[in-house]
Amino acid sequence: MNAKRGSAGRVVFVGAGPGQADLITLRGAERLRAADLVLFDSLADPALRAFAPQARWIDVGKRGFRGVPHGSSEPGAENTGQATINALLVKHAGEGSVVVRLKGGDPSVFGRLEEELEALAEAGIETEVVPGVTAALAAAAATQRPLTRRGSGRSVALTTAMTHDAGLVAGAGHADTEVFYMAGKQLGALGRKLAAAGWPGDVPVSVVSRAGWPDELASDHRLAGLAEAAVLHAGRPTVVVVGAGAGKITASIPSSSPARARQRVLPTP
Amino acid sequence: MNAKRGSAGRVVFVGAGPGQADLITLRGAERLRAADLVLFDSLADPALRAFAPQARWIDVGKRGFRGVPHGSSEPGAENTGQATINALLVKHAGEGSVVVRLKGGDPSVFGRLEEELEALAEAGIETEVVPGVTAALAAAAATQRPLTRRGSGRSVALTTAMTHDAGLVAGAGHADTEVFYMAGKQLGALGRKLAAAGWPGDVPVSVVSRAGWPDELASDHRLAGLAEAAVLHAGRPTVVVVGAGAGKITASIPSSSPARARQRVLPTP
Repeated sequence: MNAKRGSAGRVVFVGAGPGQADLITLRGAERLRAADLVLFDSLADPALRAFAPQARWIDVGKRGFRGVPHGSSEPGAENTGQATINALLVKHAGEGSVVVRLKGGDPSVFGRLEEELEALAEAGIETEVVPGVTAALAAAAATQRPLTRRGSGRSVALTTAMTHDAGLVAGAGHADTEVFYMAGKQLGALGRKLAAAGWPGDVPVSVVSRAGWPDELASDHRLAGLAEAAVLHAGRPTVVVVGAGAGKITASIPSSSPARARQRVLPTP
Repeated sequence: MNAKRGSAGRVVFVGAGPGQADLITLRGAERLRAADLVLFDSLADPALRAFAPQARWIDVGKRGFRGVPHGSSEPGAENTGQATINALLVKHAGEGSVVVRLKGGDPSVFGRLEEELEALAEAGIETEVVPGVTAALAAAAATQRPLTRRGSGRSVALTTAMTHDAGLVAGAGHADTEVFYMAGKQLGALGRKLAAAGWPGDVPVSVVSRAGWPDELASDHRLAGLAEAAVLHAGRPTVVVVGAGAGKITASIPSSSPARARQRVLPTP
C-alpha cells in the first residue's frame, strides 16, 4: 500500500436510490459535489454526473442484469471484480482523494458493502455511509401499495432471490409481506419455489421492474400465474412483492405516479 | 365533501427520511417547494420548513414517543386522530390545494399510508408517493453494519414491535437479520420475547435510537443482556437490529459517522 496515512483521503458510500437522479438524498448529492473520484455501478442514472462534474468517474458496474443502459465511458469495466474495486478504493483514498462509492439503492441492503468496508478498515481509511432509498420502497411508492398494512401487515422481509451463480432460492414466506430483489427472467422459477414452500396459489403478487425510472413497468398477478410476468420484465432488475403489501388499496385510485404503463395480467386463481 | 372535482388539488405523500433534513430526497424537497399546505408528523426535522416557507404547516403528529423535540407551533395537535387527518387531506386537496403529507422515514413502511390513500381514492383526489429512507437503513449507515451480509445474511425483515395500545409483540425470527421499530423503553420486553421465540442468548444485537439525528445513540449487546439498553434509549424512537446484520465489520473502523457517542455495553454471553 502506498497510502499516505493522515491525509484527508476518505471513502463515502452513497446510496444513489433506485433509479432517477432526483431520488438521491440531499446529503448524497452534497457528498458528490465534494468528491475527487466517483466509483459507480452501471445501474446509476447518468444524470447523477451533473452533481460532480469536477470528479473523475469510473464505472465499476458488475451486476448481471442485461439490457440496462448506463453511462459507462470505459468499455470492459462491466465485470470489474470485487478485489479490483477494493484496491481502487484503498489506493485513491490512501493517496488523499475524497472518493464517493456510489451504489444503486441503499448501500446496506444487497450492496456488498461489508467487503469494501473491511478492505478500508484494514487499510486504516476513514469511511462514511449515506443511506438511500432501496428498490422495495420505490416499488411500493410507484404502485401506491404500502408494504405494511394495519392488521394484516406488521412485517416486511427483503430477500435477494439470486445466488452468486445466478441460481435462485426462495424462503417459506414468514413475513406478512415478502419482497424479492431479482432478475425478471426468473419470475417463473420464483413462483414455483414459493408454491412449493407453501404459499397459496391465489396470493396477490405485484411485480415492478426498473422501479423509480421513467420506463418502470408494473403488473399484477396471482402466485399461480406469476410465470406470465417473465416476458414482460425479462432483462430488467425486478422487485416482486408477495402477500399483504401486494394488494391494491382500491381499484380506482387516480394516480400521477410514473407507473402509467401498468399492465394488468389476468389473475390466475 | 366540498371537493371541487377537476381542480389542480392533489396530495403528495413524501418520505422525510429518518431525521435530519438533508436525508430527504431531492424529489421530496422539490415537492415541498411546490406545496400550498404541509401536514407533518412531530418527528420531522423543523429544518424541513426551509424547503416550503410559502406553505402553511400543520402538525398532525400522533406518535407515542416521548421526549422528542419537534417544531410544533400548534399545541394540542399531538393526538390528532387519523379521521381528522383524512378529512384535512380531502378538504384541502378538494379545494384545489397542493398538499404535501410529510411522513417520517418512508411512507410505505409503518406509515399508515393505506388509510390516507383510501380516503383520497374515495374522494377521487389525485395522489403521488415519493419514497424516503426508512429508519433501518439510517441505523445501518450510522453504525456501518450492512443489514445483508454475503453468506450469512440474504434476507432482512422489518417489523414493528408496537401494537396500537403500546403493547409489544415479536416474531420468531425467520430472516437472517430482523429489525424492530419500537420505543426504547420496551427493550427488556423485546429481549425476553425473542428469547422465548428461540433466539440464542449470545446473538448480537445493535440498538440505535434517533438514527439519522445529531444526538443519535448506538449500543452493542447480546440478546440476553438487551434489558441493559432500556435506560440508555428510553423515550427515544429506536431501531433494534438482531442477527447477522448486527455484527461489527471489524473492531477498528475509523468512522466519521455521527454515531460517535457509541456506547459499548458489556456483552452478556
